[in-house]
Amino acid sequence: MRNQLLSLLVTNHFGVLMRVTNLFSRRGYNIKALTVGETENPEMSRITILTEGDDNRISQITKQLEKLEDVHRVARLEDGRHIARELLLLKVSAPEDDLATFTDRAITMGARPANREEGSLILELTGTSDQVDALIEAARTAGLAEICRTGATGMQTGDDTLA
Amino acid sequence: MRNQLLSLLVTNHFGVLMRVTNLFSRRGYNIKALTVGETENPEMSRITILTEGDDNRISQITKQLEKLEDVHRVARLEDGRHIARELLLLKVSAPEDDLATFTDRAITMGARPANREEGSLILELTGTSDQVDALIEAARTAGLAEICRTGATGMQTGDDTLA
Repeated sequence: MRNQLLSLLVTNHFGVLMRVTNLFSRRGYNIKALTVGETENPEMSRITILTEGDDNRISQITKQLEKLEDVHRVARLEDGRHIARELLLLKVSAPEDDLATFTDRAITMGARPANREEGSLILELTGTSDQVDALIEAARTAGLAEICRTGATGMQTGDDTLA
Repeated sequence: MRNQLLSLLVTNHFGVLMRVTNLFSRRGYNIKALTVGETENPEMSRITILTEGDDNRISQITKQLEKLEDVHRVARLEDGRHIARELLLLKVSAPEDDLATFTDRAITMGARPANREEGSLILELTGTSDQVDALIEAARTAGLAEICRTGATGMQTGDDTLA
């Protein structure tokens, strides 16, 4: 069992996200994270799914996705040939002095302050899942109030495109 | 018709994403972007959905989502009381000199180089949807090859949490 990022190019059409999530649910495949957003072509969307399984299972999932209506391309992002990034919003509630101290530490970990109110701070961090995990861990002792992470999204490096 | 960000706290359970996307599809509600990721509680996930509609329709969607099994909280992120961010990965393919020039410009727009190979460059940018749109626009004349955006995710500012 290992993590696998799948990148799907789909028609920007009502219902295709439903077909994709139904397939995973019906077959018992796990969705660990999912993002869907626009592409450079307004008629297309890209769905990125983090799932897990051995090689056989990933091949099965890929083939079944390719058969779905409105799914045009399914790509497995390969190890070492792609980058993956995740966006984290993290809120810390604490006394002002503690917030200032934690802000300094978070900045050294790559985070940026996104909002600051009396007793409350929101940070944003874009990085690998490990970097995101590390900031959450650091925030636990500082007054972690809420996190919101998008889940990994990714792109093949070099000349390959999935467009 | 206006954009509305909805933040759902759901059981980290097989099938809940399917129930949510089915509801949107069946009722004819549009999903403009969607992210699902882990929360501070390993048993819970957060689904963030960008949809559109007038006040009536958004109220309807919210009520119907609240009735779904495994959906614990549905929050409308309010104007002026939340921050919203989006993650963009953007690939540009061009001759080396042009890539160097575009990298400098992209950095002034808040982007960071994430990968660099001969003739190809991947940038990451986290920002508001307007900032993301602006970088994509700038890349069009520079050799835009591929984009992958997560869609907006967001968090209420101040002491309110949706946890």
